[in-house]
Amino acid sequence: MPDLLTDLRAALGDEHVLTAEANTAAYAVDWRGAYRGTPLAVLRPGSTDEVAAAVRLANDAGVAIVPQGGNTGMCGGAVPTDDGSQLVLSLGRMRRVREVDAEGGTITVEAGVVLAEVQEAAAEAGRLFPVSLGSEGSCTVGGTIATNAGGTAVLRYGMMRSQVLGLEVVLPDGRVWDGLRSLRKDNTGYDLTQLFIGAEGTLGVVTAAVLTLQPATPARATAWVALPSVAAAATLLPLLRDHAADRLTTWELVSRPALELVLAAGVTNPLDSTAEWFGLVELAGPAGADVDADLERALGDAVEKDLVLDAAIAGSPAQRAGLWALRERVSEAQESLGPTVKHDVSVPISSLDDLVARLGPALEEALPGIRPIVYGHVGDGNLHYNLSRPPSLEPEDFLVHAVELSRIVHDTTAALDGSISAEHGLGSGKAAAAAAYKSDVEVDLMRAVKAALDPAGLMNPGKVLPLQ
Amino acid sequence: MPDLLTDLRAALGDEHVLTAEANTAAYAVDWRGAYRGTPLAVLRPGSTDEVAAAVRLANDAGVAIVPQGGNTGMCGGAVPTDDGSQLVLSLGRMRRVREVDAEGGTITVEAGVVLAEVQEAAAEAGRLFPVSLGSEGSCTVGGTIATNAGGTAVLRYGMMRSQVLGLEVVLPDGRVWDGLRSLRKDNTGYDLTQLFIGAEGTLGVVTAAVLTLQPATPARATAWVALPSVAAAATLLPLLRDHAADRLTTWELVSRPALELVLAAGVTNPLDSTAEWFGLVELAGPAGADVDADLERALGDAVEKDLVLDAAIAGSPAQRAGLWALRERVSEAQESLGPTVKHDVSVPISSLDDLVARLGPALEEALPGIRPIVYGHVGDGNLHYNLSRPPSLEPEDFLVHAVELSRIVHDTTAALDGSISAEHGLGSGKAAAAAAYKSDVEVDLMRAVKAALDPAGLMNPGKVLPLQ
Repeated sequence: MPDLLTDLRAALGDEHVLTAEANTAAYAVDWRGAYRGTPLAVLRPGSTDEVAAAVRLANDAGVAIVPQGGNTGMCGGAVPTDDGSQLVLSLGRMRRVREVDAEGGTITVEAGVVLAEVQEAAAEAGRLFPVSLGSEGSCTVGGTIATNAGGTAVLRYGMMRSQVLGLEVVLPDGRVWDGLRSLRKDNTGYDLTQLFIGAEGTLGVVTAAVLTLQPATPARATAWVALPSVAAAATLLPLLRDHAADRLTTWELVSRPALELVLAAGVTNPLDSTAEWFGLVELAGPAGADVDADLERALGDAVEKDLVLDAAIAGSPAQRAGLWALRERVSEAQESLGPTVKHDVSVPISSLDDLVARLGPALEEALPGIRPIVYGHVGDGNLHYNLSRPPSLEPEDFLVHAVELSRIVHDTTAALDGSISAEHGLGSGKAAAAAAYKSDVEVDLMRAVKAALDPAGLMNPGKVLPLQ
Repeated sequence: MPDLLTDLRAALGDEHVLTAEANTAAYAVDWRGAYRGTPLAVLRPGSTDEVAAAVRLANDAGVAIVPQGGNTGMCGGAVPTDDGSQLVLSLGRMRRVREVDAEGGTITVEAGVVLAEVQEAAAEAGRLFPVSLGSEGSCTVGGTIATNAGGTAVLRYGMMRSQVLGLEVVLPDGRVWDGLRSLRKDNTGYDLTQLFIGAEGTLGVVTAAVLTLQPATPARATAWVALPSVAAAATLLPLLRDHAADRLTTWELVSRPALELVLAAGVTNPLDSTAEWFGLVELAGPAGADVDADLERALGDAVEKDLVLDAAIAGSPAQRAGLWALRERVSEAQESLGPTVKHDVSVPISSLDDLVARLGPALEEALPGIRPIVYGHVGDGNLHYNLSRPPSLEPEDFLVHAVELSRIVHDTTAALDGSISAEHGLGSGKAAAAAAYKSDVEVDLMRAVKAALDPAGLMNPGKVLPLQ
């Protein structure tokens, strides 16, 4: 494509059209090294107009575009194919915070702004941007919008989808849709904004967004609790909310095997308990709110009803950080067991115990000695049901079972009306599996939307929907 | 269409295919009498399968369908054309509450269930369904989903869009999309659910929905406050949220002329104030929450900062009802002035004072003596800017100015990056106006979505998008 690259260099500047492998390597593989491709070139436009110019040129040439943010995805959504036919379009240079409106409670940012920068800008304005996840130091606003990212505050604030008031999107033909509105209410037609969120760049390239900010909630109360069962964790959710309503911001689950990995990694155990399941609960409120009293009352009620066996309440910020480490360090601690077969499933909250009760025996039967490390966002019905190898099995002998193990996890989830990707999206890794669990009607609807907005099929092809 | 009607009678039963004018009259006109049509027939299917059969038969015959819920819309979205060519499809017989899951916090209801019934079922389960609006005693779940209804609790809970976890939809070709999921998180593709919400039946017929329930908030504190300006009302929003965070559920604005109409209708005035603007503020929390203390602290801060001139706090449920009447009875009280030219506009919250400052003089210049009765949801940037005639003008002489007056309101709103329909939708009444204020790109996107899902153009044609 010599002409296309020449035109792209003219539009973006030579230094922003990368073709040498040394320069493109970092854009050709995801952060885990799980997905790897070979781009025709990597484009680094610096403005919405430049994104539009690049997309238009690619469209005219019939060349596919793969938008890329912080490259922290879990399913290969931002990785090109390996045949050198696709352009990676990195939004990394579009890093401007265009506006912070503290009174109106909005922030307008470009796609390449890092999530942590949004959190910081909100805090400087005395507000809270609530989306928080492990990769927040490097994932971008554009990527979290494209994948509708979740994290640890979904229970209270919803996913990324719930934070977006307006979008600016470069469409597959290079036109710009300016939907950058700061309105809380706008009932003038189809919700195009929501359509682009979670579409993983298959319908257009998100270049900027208006996000909503929340009131700051500096008062926090945090506890680590031992639970009699997963069923108790589900029952506790409405109990906690009856006491705390919206001040309940966190309700996370950790299994004993997950806890033991974290303890082995050096985190302090706050509870001497033989329980099989544990929970992390946090309440947050405005300055002066007595959330400690709310939490103690809620936990007292829970103990009385035999839903909590024992509890440790953080008495200081350092203790709070210690309790959070019990949950947040599971993923990293699991790496000590070798390669992990990861799952990100959700079911209706009242089916969580059923899911766990079915999966354990089914997986043990499929591969005796397998070690499920289960944890996740119980308040959202979302578990990270991650599998480590039986100690007797070498890593490579374990991974040959990955497809079969994932099929068991996904079949069981689907049988309980669940989702095989609660918060990680589909990318190329799960697109075919997701389509297989969906009805023909639903896949047809998705294909109709894709064909309507991207008739040439050049926007991130093969992601979200498998190629036909 | 003798064959079609025969087939429809066979599918639905004779008594559920209405053709006699005496039987169809109630379905041919909206509740205000503002929109009137002549249906080919009125269909009253009793199940999803019957809706699908009816839509399939109509589709095969090339006859358009107009879905109808409680017929309480503001923009004619559920009224057929007057040429006798369209079938009204009433969901009124689909009134089953299919399931209440108190622990999981969901309710599954059919489209014809009345909004108040959802509120009651939630309360019986110890939960809250927060969407509340004037017509809740007769509007239906299907209608509120189709129009993405708002109301007085949007500030805290969002619009209808935010309450829907899953949908069942009969598509324009008669196929059924079963998207009735109870999942809090599901990142497996385009958000079809959100696409159907607010589409006013132009993409399919919503037959059932899974709605999310909230924790009950029995503790309430309510105040009526006198304000120095609209700007103060906007500035107060973050102040109130800094004190109360999510316990702030209501922040409504009422202008002096609106107040005076309500007082003239017999509601008691709780404040002796000469202010031009007033606000209704309410905090709500779980049982035992000291929301009165929160409210007193917040109002004390506001008085100190000269943002509130005076305040009356409800000391009893009866007093609370009295304060709410000051806001809720405005619309009805305005009828004493004759016909009303209504508007439902929103702007970014920080532009509210600008909107009001511009509109008053512009409208007075256009029609001296005109009486704007302004009130609304200041927390959402949403005003009902409703116009009554100058006392000197007869009603019919006033209404000839309606188009020009609405143009001024809408032009001014658009100039402030606002929306000409914040919560009422478009129907047939505002479809053309909305399209005129949108960019060509945005209208193209909407038309592409419409054509993809309803290629024959038989689902509620001319609503949301003007006919080409």
